[in-house]
Amino acid sequence: HQSLDDLHVASSPRLKYRILNHWDNLDGTIERGYAGFSFWDWHKLPDYLAPRYTDYARAVASIGINGATLTNVNANALSLTPQYLTKAAALADLFRPYGIRVYLSARFSAPIEIGGLKTADPLDADVIAWWQAKAAEIYRHIPDFGGFIVKANSEGQPGPHDYHRSHSDGANLLANALAPFGGMVIWRAFVYASENPEDRTKQAYDDLVPQDGLFAPNVLLQVKNGPLDFQPREPYHPIFGAMPQTSLMLEVQMAQEYLGLATHMVYMAPLFKETLDAETCDGPLANTVLGMAGVANTGSDRNWCGHPFGAANWYTFGRLAWDYTLSSETIADEWLRMTFSNDAHFVQKATGMMLTSREAPVNYMTPLGLHHIMARSHHYGPGPWVTGGRADWTSLYYHQADSEGIGFNRTPSGSNAVSQYCPPYREQLANLDTCPENLLLWFHHVAWRHVLKSGRTLWEELCFKYNEGVAQVRQMQADWDSLVE
Amino acid sequence: HQSLDDLHVASSPRLKYRILNHWDNLDGTIERGYAGFSFWDWHKLPDYLAPRYTDYARAVASIGINGATLTNVNANALSLTPQYLTKAAALADLFRPYGIRVYLSARFSAPIEIGGLKTADPLDADVIAWWQAKAAEIYRHIPDFGGFIVKANSEGQPGPHDYHRSHSDGANLLANALAPFGGMVIWRAFVYASENPEDRTKQAYDDLVPQDGLFAPNVLLQVKNGPLDFQPREPYHPIFGAMPQTSLMLEVQMAQEYLGLATHMVYMAPLFKETLDAETCDGPLANTVLGMAGVANTGSDRNWCGHPFGAANWYTFGRLAWDYTLSSETIADEWLRMTFSNDAHFVQKATGMMLTSREAPVNYMTPLGLHHIMARSHHYGPGPWVTGGRADWTSLYYHQADSEGIGFNRTPSGSNAVSQYCPPYREQLANLDTCPENLLLWFHHVAWRHVLKSGRTLWEELCFKYNEGVAQVRQMQADWDSLVE
Repeated sequence: HQSLDDLHVASSPRLKYRILNHWDNLDGTIERGYAGFSFWDWHKLPDYLAPRYTDYARAVASIGINGATLTNVNANALSLTPQYLTKAAALADLFRPYGIRVYLSARFSAPIEIGGLKTADPLDADVIAWWQAKAAEIYRHIPDFGGFIVKANSEGQPGPHDYHRSHSDGANLLANALAPFGGMVIWRAFVYASENPEDRTKQAYDDLVPQDGLFAPNVLLQVKNGPLDFQPREPYHPIFGAMPQTSLMLEVQMAQEYLGLATHMVYMAPLFKETLDAETCDGPLANTVLGMAGVANTGSDRNWCGHPFGAANWYTFGRLAWDYTLSSETIADEWLRMTFSNDAHFVQKATGMMLTSREAPVNYMTPLGLHHIMARSHHYGPGPWVTGGRADWTSLYYHQADSEGIGFNRTPSGSNAVSQYCPPYREQLANLDTCPENLLLWFHHVAWRHVLKSGRTLWEELCFKYNEGVAQVRQMQADWDSLVE
Repeated sequence: HQSLDDLHVASSPRLKYRILNHWDNLDGTIERGYAGFSFWDWHKLPDYLAPRYTDYARAVASIGINGATLTNVNANALSLTPQYLTKAAALADLFRPYGIRVYLSARFSAPIEIGGLKTADPLDADVIAWWQAKAAEIYRHIPDFGGFIVKANSEGQPGPHDYHRSHSDGANLLANALAPFGGMVIWRAFVYASENPEDRTKQAYDDLVPQDGLFAPNVLLQVKNGPLDFQPREPYHPIFGAMPQTSLMLEVQMAQEYLGLATHMVYMAPLFKETLDAETCDGPLANTVLGMAGVANTGSDRNWCGHPFGAANWYTFGRLAWDYTLSSETIADEWLRMTFSNDAHFVQKATGMMLTSREAPVNYMTPLGLHHIMARSHHYGPGPWVTGGRADWTSLYYHQADSEGIGFNRTPSGSNAVSQYCPPYREQLANLDTCPENLLLWFHHVAWRHVLKSGRTLWEELCFKYNEGVAQVRQMQADWDSLVE
C-alpha cells in the first residue's frame, strides 16, 4: 500500500476511442469466448437488469474504456429490430453514467433480412433510405448511440462486394446515415476471400489502401494488429501508416483464440506493445491510430475471464488504450498489486511469470515466425498437418513445409508481401540475413539446414525453441508453486 | 429461528432414486435451460475443478438428492469416449463424498459413432460386446457409476426401433452390460413418433405396457408426470400403476419449459403433489415408483436458477423425492425461511404467493385442460395459431378448435385415451358431466355454448380463467411490493 497524502494524478487519454468488442451472439453464446457465456441476457432485457451489468460498467469505466460493441461482428440482423433496440437501450441507459457508449454490429444485409427489401446495394435509394430511417430509430432509443461495427465481405459475411461496390461505398452508406446523429461506423479491415489467389496476408492492404481518402469522416477503419489473425506473433499490419487520410483503429484480442484459450497463461501487454511500438511508414504505429478496440475475454465464469491471469489482459487493454507509453512491467505491477498482493517478493516473481508468458506460447506454438499451424476450427492445440477444405484455412498454406525447408516466401521471389512495408524495413525483412529471426518463417522459406545466429540449424533451432517454451512453462509452474504459502 | 436444544430428527428417504437430470450439452449450452449455461466446463475438466462443483454437491446433498445425470438426454456419443470419461470421473470423484452418483446419457447409436461398428442393433453380437467393453471401461474410470439414461426412438433420437427391436430389447442390451458392475439403465418412456397416426398421448402406453415384465431387473423406466410433455396441467401418466413388473421412475421438470421459462414465478410443489397423490389403477402414484427424476433448472446465472423463486422448485424436488408426503405449504415455509426471512408476516404472504403461482399459469396459459398451445420451438408465450410442420408439434393438433367448440376428444367416441385409465376414473373422465373441469378440454371436445358448473358458457369460462390468471399475477405483484420495506 502507498500513502495517498501526496497523490496528485492528472491523466488524459492518448487515444480517443477505447472500445471493448464483445463477440456475443443473441443466444448467449460467445464466438471465441472461453470464460463462459455472454453477460447480456437478451431474453430478460429490458425488464431485468442483472447486477453484473453495473459491476461490468464500473470495471470498464475504471480503466478508461469508453465504448462497448455489444454484439458479434458475425452479426445477426435481429439486433437492429425494435425489440432488440429496446433491450440495447436499457444497457445504454445503465452504462451512460459510466461514460460508456453502446455500439452494435450491423449486418450489411439487414435491409433484406429485417427490412423486406430485395437488395442491400449501398447505392440503392431504398437501401440508403432504410439505413437513414434505421439510424433515426436507433437514436430515438439510444440518444448517444456510438455507432455500428461491421464485418463485411469476410468469412462469408455479406457486404458491398456482393453488389460490386467497394468497402468505402459500404462504409459510407452507414456513415452517412449515422452522421446527422454523430455516430461512427467502425469498418473492419479483416477482409479476405478464399477465391482470391493472392497471399491472404496481402489482401486487406491491396483492397483498402487504394481507397484511402474515400471513406467518410465518421468512418473508423479497424485493423487487427497483424495482417493475418491474432497469431502468437505477427509483423505489424502494413495498413498502419499507409492510409494517412483514413481514421484507423487498432484491434487486439484479449480472448486467447490462438493463445491457448483461457487455459494457458499469456500476459498480452508485451504483444500489444510490440504492435504499438512498431515503426510504420508514417512513424510509430501508436501515432497512426485514433483508438484501440479489444476483443473481450469476459464471460459468465465466476472470475469473468476464465484463467486467473485473464483479467490482466482486459486491464492491459484499457490501460494501453488510455496511455500506450506505459510499460508491460508497470501494468503487470499495477494489476498484480490490485488483484493479489503488495508483497514485494510475490510481485517480483509474478511479474517475471507474466513477462515470460508472452514469449512462451510463441516458442511452444509458433517459433521463428511460424503461424496458423493450429488445430482446425477450435484453434486449440497444434495442427500443422491440417489440410483440406479452403486452402487459406489450412496449415500447409502457411508453413509450406517440404523436404527442403519450411516457411512462407513473402519476399519479391515469393508473394512479395514485404512490398507492403516501407524501406528500410522492407529490405530488412526481404533479406534472409537481416530479417528478424522471430519473423523469419513468416517471410522466408528457409532450408532445414540453414544455420541461424545461434549456430544451430533451422531444424535444431525449431526444436530448441519448442523445448524452451515448455521449459518456460515449467518454470512458471515452479515459480507459482513457490508463491503458495 | 428455532431453538436446536430439543431437536431430534430421524428421517429416511421414501424413494430410493432421487436423481437430478441435467440436459446439458458438451458445448456448455443447456437444452431448455433458462438460468445461464452449464455448470460443467468440459474443456477445463478434469484438470480444473471449479469451486462451483463443490457448492453444487453440497446443495444437492443437503436435500437428499443422490444422483445426477450430467448430460443431455438428446445425447452426444462423445461423452462416452475415454477423453470425456476422464472428465466425468473427475466430477464423480468430487461428488462421491457427498453421496452423489454420476450417470451419463447414452446415445443408442454410439457403437456406430464412436465404436466404428456398422450397426447398433441390440441383438447384434458385436454391439453387445461393444457395450460390455464400454461398461467395463466406464467402471474403471468411475467405480460407482450410476448408469445410463437413454432417450431412444423419440424426437429423432436413434433407438432399437431402427432395427425393428423393442424398447425392452434396447434397454436390456445396456442393462446386461451394466449389471456386472451394479449399474442401472434409466430408459425414458417419453416415446412417440409423428409417423404414428395414433393420439400422441396414447403412444407410450401402447408401446410399453405390453412389455411389462420384459425389462431386465436393473432397468428403471422413467415416465413423465403426464402423458404429453410437462404442460401446466396434465392428467397423470397412465403408465403409472399399469406396469407392476417394471421399476418406474417419475420424471418432473423444474426447468420451466412450458411455464414461462425463468421469467414467470411458478412454485411447482402443488404440481408435483398433484401427480404424486394421483390414484392409479394400482393405488397412489407415489407408491408405484422407485424414484424421482427432476430436470434441473440450474445454470451459470448468479443465483443459479434465474427467477428469484426458481430455487424453490429444485428444493421441492429434493424434498418430495425424499418424502412425498410433505405438503406444498410445508416445503414453501422451509424454503422461504432459509432463503429470505423468518418474519411471520413475510412468510405468510410469500407462501400465499407461491401457492397461487401454480394455478395462475394454468389459468393464463392453458385453462380447463387446454394443452400444447404455446409458441413453437422456444415454447415461450402463446401460439394457439401454430400449424404446419409435423402435426403433433402444432397447437391445432391439441386444441382442435372449430366453429362448434374446442378440445381433444379422448373419450371412446374419439381417441379413447381414457381407456388407458382404470374404472371408475376412466368413466369419470369419459363423461362430460363428471370429468374434472380442470381437465375438461384434455378429454372432451366441448361446445362453445356448453354451460359449466359456474353457470358460465365454455367461452365465458375461458375468458374468466384467462382473466383470473392475470389478476392472480397482479395480486402476486402487489403482495411482493407490499413486502418491500
